[in-house]
Amino acid sequence: MAMRQTLDFLLNDWLKVNELNQRPRFAEHSGETFAAVLDTCEKIAREKFAPVNRLTDTEEPRFDGERVHLPAATHAALAAYVESGMLAAAQDYDTGGMQLPCVIEMAANAFFSMANIAMGGYAMLTSGNANLLMAHGTPLQREVFAKNEFSGRWFGTMCLSEPQAGSSLSDVATRAEPDGEGFAADALGPRYRLKGNKMWISAGEHEISENIIHLVLAKIPGPDGKTLPGTRGISLFIVPKHLVNERGELTGERNDVALAGLNHKLGYRGTTNCLLNFGEGRFKPGGQGGAIGYLVGKPGEGLKCMFHMMNEARIGVGLGATMLGYAGYEASLAYARQRPQGRPMTQAGKDAASPQRPIIEHADVKRMLLAQKSYVEGALALELFCARLVDELHTAKPDEAAAAGLLLEVLIPIAKSWPSEWCLEANSLAIQVLGGYGYTRDFPVEQYWRDNRLNMIHEGTHGIQALDLLGRKVVMNGGQALLALAGRINQTVQRALAVPGLAEAANQLAGALGQVGKATKSAWASGLPEEALANATPYMQAFGHVVLAWLWLDVALVAQGDSDFERGKRAAQQYFYRYELPKIAAWLAVAAAREPLTREMQDAWF
Amino acid sequence: MAMRQTLDFLLNDWLKVNELNQRPRFAEHSGETFAAVLDTCEKIAREKFAPVNRLTDTEEPRFDGERVHLPAATHAALAAYVESGMLAAAQDYDTGGMQLPCVIEMAANAFFSMANIAMGGYAMLTSGNANLLMAHGTPLQREVFAKNEFSGRWFGTMCLSEPQAGSSLSDVATRAEPDGEGFAADALGPRYRLKGNKMWISAGEHEISENIIHLVLAKIPGPDGKTLPGTRGISLFIVPKHLVNERGELTGERNDVALAGLNHKLGYRGTTNCLLNFGEGRFKPGGQGGAIGYLVGKPGEGLKCMFHMMNEARIGVGLGATMLGYAGYEASLAYARQRPQGRPMTQAGKDAASPQRPIIEHADVKRMLLAQKSYVEGALALELFCARLVDELHTAKPDEAAAAGLLLEVLIPIAKSWPSEWCLEANSLAIQVLGGYGYTRDFPVEQYWRDNRLNMIHEGTHGIQALDLLGRKVVMNGGQALLALAGRINQTVQRALAVPGLAEAANQLAGALGQVGKATKSAWASGLPEEALANATPYMQAFGHVVLAWLWLDVALVAQGDSDFERGKRAAQQYFYRYELPKIAAWLAVAAAREPLTREMQDAWF
Repeated sequence: MAMRQTLDFLLNDWLKVNELNQRPRFAEHSGETFAAVLDTCEKIAREKFAPVNRLTDTEEPRFDGERVHLPAATHAALAAYVESGMLAAAQDYDTGGMQLPCVIEMAANAFFSMANIAMGGYAMLTSGNANLLMAHGTPLQREVFAKNEFSGRWFGTMCLSEPQAGSSLSDVATRAEPDGEGFAADALGPRYRLKGNKMWISAGEHEISENIIHLVLAKIPGPDGKTLPGTRGISLFIVPKHLVNERGELTGERNDVALAGLNHKLGYRGTTNCLLNFGEGRFKPGGQGGAIGYLVGKPGEGLKCMFHMMNEARIGVGLGATMLGYAGYEASLAYARQRPQGRPMTQAGKDAASPQRPIIEHADVKRMLLAQKSYVEGALALELFCARLVDELHTAKPDEAAAAGLLLEVLIPIAKSWPSEWCLEANSLAIQVLGGYGYTRDFPVEQYWRDNRLNMIHEGTHGIQALDLLGRKVVMNGGQALLALAGRINQTVQRALAVPGLAEAANQLAGALGQVGKATKSAWASGLPEEALANATPYMQAFGHVVLAWLWLDVALVAQGDSDFERGKRAAQQYFYRYELPKIAAWLAVAAAREPLTREMQDAWF
Repeated sequence: MAMRQTLDFLLNDWLKVNELNQRPRFAEHSGETFAAVLDTCEKIAREKFAPVNRLTDTEEPRFDGERVHLPAATHAALAAYVESGMLAAAQDYDTGGMQLPCVIEMAANAFFSMANIAMGGYAMLTSGNANLLMAHGTPLQREVFAKNEFSGRWFGTMCLSEPQAGSSLSDVATRAEPDGEGFAADALGPRYRLKGNKMWISAGEHEISENIIHLVLAKIPGPDGKTLPGTRGISLFIVPKHLVNERGELTGERNDVALAGLNHKLGYRGTTNCLLNFGEGRFKPGGQGGAIGYLVGKPGEGLKCMFHMMNEARIGVGLGATMLGYAGYEASLAYARQRPQGRPMTQAGKDAASPQRPIIEHADVKRMLLAQKSYVEGALALELFCARLVDELHTAKPDEAAAAGLLLEVLIPIAKSWPSEWCLEANSLAIQVLGGYGYTRDFPVEQYWRDNRLNMIHEGTHGIQALDLLGRKVVMNGGQALLALAGRINQTVQRALAVPGLAEAANQLAGALGQVGKATKSAWASGLPEEALANATPYMQAFGHVVLAWLWLDVALVAQGDSDFERGKRAAQQYFYRYELPKIAAWLAVAAAREPLTREMQDAWF
């Protein structure tokens, strides 16, 4: 698989992951153990995930009113994943984990996302859920819930959105009330009864695992029966589908969590997506309706707990978008190499009597392949770089950890949004390379495009990421995070200036960075958020392109040899600088001008 | 329907279609008869096409090995269309037509494309097929085939592509040999036997109409049994599914045209799309295998005949892409007006205790709606403008007709490609406005996006359009067509310079036009097609944006009042100038530099 070579190059030659072994946490690892993990995951993905990617699309989850039916292939693929131990990849040895660095965990998951994104969804949610409990749960919550998720015995979900509140978590209306007098004395945590509806819950219902552990945001009403407006009133609860005791055994009692319906999606169909009713009274645990939930952390700190895991979750979504793009790139590259059509255009015209040539020889096809290559390999570099920063955050010396944390602040919105937009564009280009065949369901590229369209929507929409970037991240602490990024970019510029083939690009990047800095200042010049943020999305598009240009230059610095592989990396870097980076001027202009058109536009004028 | 108001405005206030009534061909028409046609079509589209748009997607055509099964709704919708007489809308009264101008015919078809693009496909192919026969057929071919298509008794197809030759028509391998000694004496035209496979044939098989009239490109071998390489050896044939006599009656004999299989598509599913085997011997007309076909026009002039209808066909595809974009725009606008979520961002933050506001109040949502509006209304203006030029070509005084023809040469690749790319983007933005709901099949926007993805592929791919534009159209006759366009654009610039609110945009457009002129010259400076054309696609993207900017300015000139409607038009024009037009710099730079990267990229480097 061609992707593996690029993955190994980025990990070893560029990110130098082997240096992580010098840290105590990873001391038992080596280049060999990292490679063995990647080998195993590549094999499972190839043998168990990829062959059923189309099947899990066409045999969509079906709800008969009682139970959800999934293809046997879903059960088999996830059993193989559980078997691999990857759910606990990054956990401590004594939690049953492998103590792998985040960057290796993400690299390993890249194979699964590329082979079958919908199967990867169940796994990502389960380990994310358990990770959160490891950080914020009580020792018993970790023991009972997290460990059984890491082992794959139970799967997990994240229940944030509600039908009336998608992006607006302030408006969460699910309520949690103390479950009787002794509610505070439950060994599993303060016990509440939850009532409310949760929408867009991926993996919210299935029978793949023995139990499903929902992590649910809800508000605890005050003595007056009212809940606090805003996000400060939100708390976090563990709500198991089947109730369990403190030894982690099922009690035999079903909790009051009912599937109201499955969402029928454009893509990503293999992952169930649910409307769940909590506490509607369908089931009566302890003789009464209301879903039993155990508080995690302190009341009112639900969002804080949830967002603690946001970095990994958003890197995971960005990685998924990236790998869908990568899958389309590889499929269209293979097609272009074997499909004969047309002949080269020369001054003498075309010689119709000569045999047709593979379409990869046409400049416009190479343009579409180079664009894809620059998007998907660049995005992979971005996600691995961010994962590497997570490792810095957790295992580097305090100063370096703080620096990594600062960089992550500005990079996470890009890690989520950029591949969602540009690797989707890569998927569209893959369809175009295949032409009519690409538009049929006989080839996989149309599915990748459908699957990938979700990524600009879930885990914080594109617009939400843009507000996070321009409204918070680049201005926080007096702009320190942006300064930290600029510092890193300038280091790359300085190194590249010394390399004859990269000096021009280095200057171009320095100029682009200056433009971003100016636009950031201009956007905030009036100090009014409504003015600054009206063009947050074009700003983010430009910001993302500059980040990718930086990473491509940094990658090119370690690809200066004469091999085909290294020439290809440099060509992709050049493509990005000549065709992509110049696009930022148009995006930044409206942000810098605080262009008021969209704010001033009136409903009645549409 | 909001679209109708814009359509009427563009036709009446901008294109002044009523002036066409002064020409003899349209003398019996008036603003009232035009409006009555639009009323009728709007009603049929609303009542018969739109309600089954999802059904014709989910109940995809099914082939049982013998017959193709379509939903009853398909039959009913097309019966209503046939009943309307629109198949012959532009034909002479004595052919049973309405002698409508092309611009009114296209405007009327806009309703059908918007309501159910896949149903519209059958109609467009049938009238295009019959139009071609009216231009190139013998009187009897017109009488027997064209008239029965205009009446809707029979439907038609265009059979160009083959499995081994999609965009490369030079490589058509279907052969046509004289059918016996008396082949030249058949009243229906010189009779041949065809053998070969035709791929991607829309409407290639169904039982909606009594018969299907295929127009098929094939090569007549020379005395040595060999066919000419290239496109010059291609001839055009009428190949009916069921044989007919010279009175237009079915003879009861089935021609040797067999459905090999249906293509299962990403979208546009309601139109059957077929691999057809001609002359494989499945049927034996006259006791032997070989599909009977009647030559149209002269041998070797098949492509010339086919391309005679190319203007209308490509306007039709562009219009289809436009109307899918329009459908998504209206759906997302309606959603944004009624969906409450979030609150305005102000310097004081957000007041979480206040009720949520409709999302149309958020600047980023307005940005997404304005972008859609500027794409879809601009594209509609483009298609109507081109259709109006077709009317000039056919009914204006010779000088004006020639000028219109010249303009059409450069505008047709844009009319086909621009809406295919940007109204698809509009559909993606519509999904984004709806968020998670947009990703489900409970809302129509995901289907529009899938349906629209076809339009960059069929009827000449995006890359083919770009080669046509930069390789032929802008350089033909010493660049006369480009000069003609520049002349028209400059007229608009001059008029806009006199209008205070438009002068800035006028200057911006003049500058953009200058950039296109320079890039065109630079691209061709070396005179080498391989250098000039390596960046034909980015060149076309820029060219298209300049054309749309011009049309928006021209439209804004007639929308200078204070009504909400006119303000909306000006806002969309402003959006296009501030957010879109600046994008051309990046696209033109690579074309002007004859950027060699994609040509120099090697297969092995990917």
